[in-house]
Amino acid sequence: MTDPLFQRIAIIGIGLIGSSLARAIAEQKLAGEIAIFDASAEARAAAHELTLGQVVDSLAAAAKDADLVILATPIGAYADIGPALAPHLKKGAILTDVGSVKQAVIRDLGPHVPEGVHFIPGHPIAGTEHSGPRAGFADLFKGRWAIVTPVPGSDPTATAKLQALWSAVGSMVEVMEPAHHDQVLAITSHLPHLIAYTIVDTATQLETSTQSEVIKFSASGFRDFTRIAASDPTMWRDIFLNNREAVLEILGRFTEDLTAMQRAIRWGEGDKLFETFTRTRAVRRGIIDAKQA
Amino acid sequence: MTDPLFQRIAIIGIGLIGSSLARAIAEQKLAGEIAIFDASAEARAAAHELTLGQVVDSLAAAAKDADLVILATPIGAYADIGPALAPHLKKGAILTDVGSVKQAVIRDLGPHVPEGVHFIPGHPIAGTEHSGPRAGFADLFKGRWAIVTPVPGSDPTATAKLQALWSAVGSMVEVMEPAHHDQVLAITSHLPHLIAYTIVDTATQLETSTQSEVIKFSASGFRDFTRIAASDPTMWRDIFLNNREAVLEILGRFTEDLTAMQRAIRWGEGDKLFETFTRTRAVRRGIIDAKQA
Ligand SMILES: NC(=O)c1ccc[n+]([C@@H]2O[C@H](COP(=O)([O-])OP(=O)(O)OC[C@H]3O[C@@H](n4cnc5c(N)ncnc54)[C@H](OP(=O)(O)O)[C@@H]3O)[C@@H](O)[C@H]2O)c1
Ligand SMILES: NC(=O)c1ccc[n+]([C@@H]2O[C@H](COP(=O)([O-])OP(=O)(O)OC[C@H]3O[C@@H](n4cnc5c(N)ncnc54)[C@H](OP(=O)(O)O)[C@@H]3O)[C@@H](O)[C@H]2O)c1
Repeated sequence: MTDPLFQRIAIIGIGLIGSSLARAIAEQKLAGEIAIFDASAEARAAAHELTLGQVVDSLAAAAKDADLVILATPIGAYADIGPALAPHLKKGAILTDVGSVKQAVIRDLGPHVPEGVHFIPGHPIAGTEHSGPRAGFADLFKGRWAIVTPVPGSDPTATAKLQALWSAVGSMVEVMEPAHHDQVLAITSHLPHLIAYTIVDTATQLETSTQSEVIKFSASGFRDFTRIAASDPTMWRDIFLNNREAVLEILGRFTEDLTAMQRAIRWGEGDKLFETFTRTRAVRRGIIDAKQA
Repeated sequence: MTDPLFQRIAIIGIGLIGSSLARAIAEQKLAGEIAIFDASAEARAAAHELTLGQVVDSLAAAAKDADLVILATPIGAYADIGPALAPHLKKGAILTDVGSVKQAVIRDLGPHVPEGVHFIPGHPIAGTEHSGPRAGFADLFKGRWAIVTPVPGSDPTATAKLQALWSAVGSMVEVMEPAHHDQVLAITSHLPHLIAYTIVDTATQLETSTQSEVIKFSASGFRDFTRIAASDPTMWRDIFLNNREAVLEILGRFTEDLTAMQRAIRWGEGDKLFETFTRTRAVRRGIIDAKQA
């Protein structure tokens, strides 16, 4: 029998992402043991019932002796978790996370990380609109990308070990600058969610009679937005508050482009509409070719 | 053997919607014969090869003796088709269509419809992002809504017969005012498509290096928009040019709401974001309950 990649992995926050990781780590035998802590008693009870690992009652108990600690809570919780967790981290341990924003995470956690602990933030590009430990599944990360964003001075050996974990659960791994991560995700994820939330909200403000028709006839485009706009409100509030600049910058570009489309519609500029609608088809082709469809 | 609902159905435009109808009509034995005309020789050849019906070379030959004529071309073509088709319509025939906008269709076709022909526009709320006769399938309309928009003076018996056709291919049928149809579809379909096209276009204008990353990491929200933005450019140009007022009106509301979200992000108003994101979840629930998810 070969040794597992880590002796003890602690997962803090056992929701969709944390519980999917717990399942995938167990399935791939990547840890001698998995310790789990979650602030929610309900989530802890579910994790226990689902036998996702050894469920403990405190951050300290989870972190004790762990050689890998993974934060998988909404990122707004990091500012509290950082100082509470830090004293319990083992020398030589790796501290990582799965949060959807990286610069703010480094700002909030970085200062608390003790000497000798390897802090290497991360972010799996995989998810669903569901939440909680029961929504997770081991295959969530298969064929998807995981981004790892080492900070200046991160130990290459520790980074390689974290990359090995993501590979082992089925992901392709990309190493990226934290600032660049936040820009790319602002366009691929944060702006699409903001727009989906907004359009669904616009619909909820119509007269009641029209609202029920919107639901009835949603198959014509709208329903895809409602799925995105059903994502967890806490998680998404935290993302927008913590990636403000990159989101506002890309939102500015988007509204300029939308104004140009509005103008083309108002003035009946069919050619301009046709050109735009033709250009965008190529992007779909790219995604299909990249097997991310 | 009972008589089919119609002796001869003519389908003009044998793309995604026309060919799906041809398949469903044949499967349900709703016509004694199906005549097919399409302006594209390629589409005609495909329709012949797929044995979707009796493929003919002219509008006149298709309409001859037909007791139901269905227009299933992009709506921009109606202004030409109207005068060319009118002289060949049989007395007592029903003329309908599947176009995504209704007032403009009535404006373009209405004046050409001869005395004694029943003009009853329609619109199935079903589709995919694919086009052409090979993309169609008989089940496309199953469990989806079909909207029928009779004009003043439409014969109730003829309307009932058209409703029966849509029921027979598996749809639920709703009768609606044309103007109201255009408003409801502006929010459920036209605005979502406009936004999806725009955000994908915004992405195509980023630096080349970021563009390839957008494709790579599209699984985090963006890819759902690219699917919508891969829809047929001609069809969508025609929709925006022909439902201008309703689209501009709902777009105005949307941009107001988006500006409010932008402001909430800029000023760190977490509660406002959280409230909005919570409200929108209920809409998803409604769609799931209505079995349109
Ligand atoms: N969902 C996605 O699609 C996705 C994709 C990639 C990355 N992410 C990132 O992954 C992280 C988790 O997302 P998720 O979807 O897995 O969320 P989730 O299903 O809502 O689970 C988060 C869990 O963390 C718990 N928690 C909150 N504050 C805590 C604290 N201070 N200490 C310990 N546990 C705490 C929550 O409990 P309560 O319910 O009581 O708050 C909940 O059980 C987020 O940072 C998100 O940005 C999500
Ligand atoms: N796709 C959807 O999701 C959807 C849903 C509901 C309703 N609709 C409506 O259904 C209609 C057809 O859409 P579709 O997706 O089926 O389009 P499609 O797959 O592109 O097929 C349209 C066909 O009509 C042909 N055509 C164009 N002008 C013509 C003319 N003057 N005479 C005869 N044939 C002509 C086209 O030939 P060329 O290729 O040579 O132009 C093409 O073969 C549109 O009005 C659309 O608004 C579409």
